[in-house]
Amino acid sequence: MKTLQVKLGDRSYPIYIGENLLQDFGLFSKHVKGHLSFIVTNPTIESLYANQVEASLIKAGQKVVRVILPEGEAFKNWETLQLIFDGLLKAGADRKSTIFALGGGVIGDMAGFAAASFMRGIAFVQIPTTLLSQVDSSVGGKTGINHPLGKNMIGAFHQPVAVFTDLLTLKTLPAKELAAGLAEVIKHGAIADAEFLNWIEGHINELNACEISAMEHVVLRSCEIKAAVVAADEKEGGVRAHLNFGHTFGHAIEAGMGYGQWLHGEAVGCGMVIAATLSQKLGYITLEDVTRLSKMIKALNLPTTPPSWPVSQYMDLMSHDKKAELGTIKYVVLKSLGQANVQQVPDTVIHHLLTDFGAT
Amino acid sequence: MKTLQVKLGDRSYPIYIGENLLQDFGLFSKHVKGHLSFIVTNPTIESLYANQVEASLIKAGQKVVRVILPEGEAFKNWETLQLIFDGLLKAGADRKSTIFALGGGVIGDMAGFAAASFMRGIAFVQIPTTLLSQVDSSVGGKTGINHPLGKNMIGAFHQPVAVFTDLLTLKTLPAKELAAGLAEVIKHGAIADAEFLNWIEGHINELNACEISAMEHVVLRSCEIKAAVVAADEKEGGVRAHLNFGHTFGHAIEAGMGYGQWLHGEAVGCGMVIAATLSQKLGYITLEDVTRLSKMIKALNLPTTPPSWPVSQYMDLMSHDKKAELGTIKYVVLKSLGQANVQQVPDTVIHHLLTDFGAT
Repeated sequence: MKTLQVKLGDRSYPIYIGENLLQDFGLFSKHVKGHLSFIVTNPTIESLYANQVEASLIKAGQKVVRVILPEGEAFKNWETLQLIFDGLLKAGADRKSTIFALGGGVIGDMAGFAAASFMRGIAFVQIPTTLLSQVDSSVGGKTGINHPLGKNMIGAFHQPVAVFTDLLTLKTLPAKELAAGLAEVIKHGAIADAEFLNWIEGHINELNACEISAMEHVVLRSCEIKAAVVAADEKEGGVRAHLNFGHTFGHAIEAGMGYGQWLHGEAVGCGMVIAATLSQKLGYITLEDVTRLSKMIKALNLPTTPPSWPVSQYMDLMSHDKKAELGTIKYVVLKSLGQANVQQVPDTVIHHLLTDFGAT
Repeated sequence: MKTLQVKLGDRSYPIYIGENLLQDFGLFSKHVKGHLSFIVTNPTIESLYANQVEASLIKAGQKVVRVILPEGEAFKNWETLQLIFDGLLKAGADRKSTIFALGGGVIGDMAGFAAASFMRGIAFVQIPTTLLSQVDSSVGGKTGINHPLGKNMIGAFHQPVAVFTDLLTLKTLPAKELAAGLAEVIKHGAIADAEFLNWIEGHINELNACEISAMEHVVLRSCEIKAAVVAADEKEGGVRAHLNFGHTFGHAIEAGMGYGQWLHGEAVGCGMVIAATLSQKLGYITLEDVTRLSKMIKALNLPTTPPSWPVSQYMDLMSHDKKAELGTIKYVVLKSLGQANVQQVPDTVIHHLLTDFGAT
């Protein structure tokens, strides 16, 4: 088991990465305060892992209550969040109760926001069971739900007290979701570590096959990169924006398709190809760099061609993005492979770019 | 105009206390970041003050959007909160937009929680128009909404960027609400400043008549006391609990009657009489102290006799209070007038106490 400390002052917390963590009741025992724990999960993950987690919590002296949420991004809303509050209050949760978010990003975002808001903040532990949540959403404390007018519009920064990343849970993950998670892994290399990007390029087969030693390396390195960025900029005032590489275009694709049609990682993968091409057009990286990145994304069987919508539709979707200020869009570009920058770009440049990618 | 600084590190903010602040556009101009401001209020306060606030904001260069919420504690719930999010998103709010909470505690709690949660946190300014909100809820950053199973169960700690306390707004406040606010003023004297309590005792008539110079003194001193407590204990781990003097019994009365039947300040006034009597029974303060406090509360025409419910009903209501841990109730008592303490008390003592107050 590897341990990585996310350094955020009095909100610092450890990420444990290894195998068979769900059975390690000592770990659970270390991170609970009161006597009452809640497992928040969905039916699929419940049937796979809830018994193991519950057994460990009981061994750690906890009374355990399960809160089962309907599955998928479409249910990441207030009505579902309310099910958590109902479950907490009916079971007599107090300020020392602990919430265990067992699942992927949707579960983590909702259980985390419930923990942030319940009695103005109680403890929660992330147990991410998807690669995407292991390398991305479990680091940084972003929690929230969607609003009919925008994704993740309502939420809080609320750091977990610990993250238990059991790599064996990746073995039950559909191939498509594994690939979507690897898109974010590539992103971490692209914005911050050229050597890591080389390593990924040389181990695509091991990653596609979900070999545990390869997964351990990319999960750990991704968490290190993201943790360093978050430690430098917890509330997204500056460098944290680099993590949005590929996301401005990606979010537009997700929103325009209707959430859930493309996986987040698929949209980000495609968004990175567009953003890399933009970086090349601006004279930063070479065509060869773009091709390398694009090939890696293709090798993971992720889409690299966006929907052929009108340019105006793309612009409209992007100007509604949460990162836009007064409709002004900021783009994350690569100065080189392994180094990102945030800047404005003239609309005409973006129009040409999107047209090159098949926009009408 | 007096200015009091609430010291909370990078979340510090000023409270301005004076007359005609709503017309002071320089003040508004100082505390906005972007170009879009939202006035969140209810129909009664809108008709009294929204035009003044809007005019000042326009002079300060802001585009202004009003969000009008239905009035009263009964609407302090998710459905009403959603109206704020809808209003923000429809008007194109971004991370630099500012919310102005114009009204009493309910408006402040909801607008504040909306500000805390919208895009994971935007700026808000409190413009408290009731005495209760001026001396209590506008200091400390507690925001939130009610859940069918408990009051203020869902919320956040989110500090305003400034508080504009215009004392002239108290002139339009119903006498009953003025009295309810004065209950919290008495509380601040009782837990932290015996001399202030003496002052209040000597100025009951001026306070009942809402004389501005008297109001300025009690608002300023109350904010100073509360700000000092909050600065010492922002997240309610220790001394902040002293502010709950009278609230354990008070919340039970509010919850048992159904919220909105007794004003919060009325329930707290009555709760303080019970808590003071408890302090005397435990041997801390004298019968004369209890009588003094009780007389002041009566002189404000606040109730001092609780509903005659069964003792078991009181115990049940109190054990569901947010401050209870695993059903264990902690009581705030007075060691002397001007000095509070938190402690457990045997149930039998509480049973006798409640029986003395008419519980069956």
